[in-house]
Amino acid sequence: MKYKTCVSIAENTPAKMKKILKIALSKSDYVEVRFDFLKIEKIPETLEMIKKDLNRIVCTLRPKTEGGRFPGNEKERIAVLKLIAEYNPFLLDVEFNTLKKNLDLTKYLKSTKTKLLVSWHDFKKTPSTLELKKKVSQMEKFSSNVKIVSTAKSTDDSTRMLELYSKKGKNNLISFAMGDYGRISRILCLYLGSPYTYVSLGKAIAPGQFSVDEVKKIIKLKK
Amino acid sequence: MKYKTCVSIAENTPAKMKKILKIALSKSDYVEVRFDFLKIEKIPETLEMIKKDLNRIVCTLRPKTEGGRFPGNEKERIAVLKLIAEYNPFLLDVEFNTLKKNLDLTKYLKSTKTKLLVSWHDFKKTPSTLELKKKVSQMEKFSSNVKIVSTAKSTDDSTRMLELYSKKGKNNLISFAMGDYGRISRILCLYLGSPYTYVSLGKAIAPGQFSVDEVKKIIKLKK
Repeated sequence: MKYKTCVSIAENTPAKMKKILKIALSKSDYVEVRFDFLKIEKIPETLEMIKKDLNRIVCTLRPKTEGGRFPGNEKERIAVLKLIAEYNPFLLDVEFNTLKKNLDLTKYLKSTKTKLLVSWHDFKKTPSTLELKKKVSQMEKFSSNVKIVSTAKSTDDSTRMLELYSKKGKNNLISFAMGDYGRISRILCLYLGSPYTYVSLGKAIAPGQFSVDEVKKIIKLKK
Repeated sequence: MKYKTCVSIAENTPAKMKKILKIALSKSDYVEVRFDFLKIEKIPETLEMIKKDLNRIVCTLRPKTEGGRFPGNEKERIAVLKLIAEYNPFLLDVEFNTLKKNLDLTKYLKSTKTKLLVSWHDFKKTPSTLELKKKVSQMEKFSSNVKIVSTAKSTDDSTRMLELYSKKGKNNLISFAMGDYGRISRILCLYLGSPYTYVSLGKAIAPGQFSVDEVKKIIKLKK
């Protein structure tokens, strides 16, 4: 098995995004572009600028309610999500809560055969295993690509996120915990079948994140 | 491959040692008994008390210069090491520096066919890879069971300790880093061929150590 990385990049101008994307793609299998860091009106030209690389890009447009920076309202956000979908990226990350509330968006993404990554984050804690399993089941209704992320306050929290892989089945599950206690889950998720792990280009963006260079060295250990 | 644990226990009376040892053996494949936490005169009766379990015990008698608590002088410590050797434990941990300085001890342990674990610790940093490899080579002259432990100040320090496994050959190498950045190496060393990883029974004794329960849960993930 080949262990893969996805570098998250978040720049606030199309030019910077393009420049950083190039470096990120040279180091990582995949790159997550955080479109919510851009001004709304700059998103279309950014998409045009990077379209040839979109087959290796996870596109994300997080609202403020989910830890993101998208400056517009939900209607605008949904319109932009639909625009990104037309470019048919490697994956379009849409929050579970967004899909639940916007069944028309869900239907649209299905009709356009968008490769959807349904995501859910808990920035404060790690819910009970029962709650987590229930959440994954609900998420799987939207896509076989599921990303569930919690915040670990103990090693056991981190391990419980990894235990979700045992009931993985045919889905592409990405399950890990943020925070210092979660660091180990960002590596072990790969050994358990995660399609990739999120890394930073340099300094960590998310709590507990490794850099791409750090993870590549760790991956190399296991030949 | 079966991933194994070794619980370190350090009690200051034979009775407490016996009690905690029983719990530790019920939870872990191996147990490290830190004899240096006992009064010197209590060591013989402790050995008698636990002798039926010594085939699963790593015996350690650390001097103060190596982070231990042995209250006597080096002559006394060597005498006690020889006494422990007579019980033929699973492993007798003797510091590389001790073996180098006491060739008579080395010769004695060889003649008694003691299963020797030669150990070296850096409590401040992680030396360069070149120094580490040189150290391992020197240590291998004393035993095929080598334990080399550093203190990680970055993820890369931790990874470098794990890189030593690539030149492992036929030796039983135990190589990991202490400290928060080293935590991941305490798990990954198992995947790379370490015969076991050191864990605590409850609260961590060494910096960055996991508890046996935490590690057993992590091990269970990889069936």
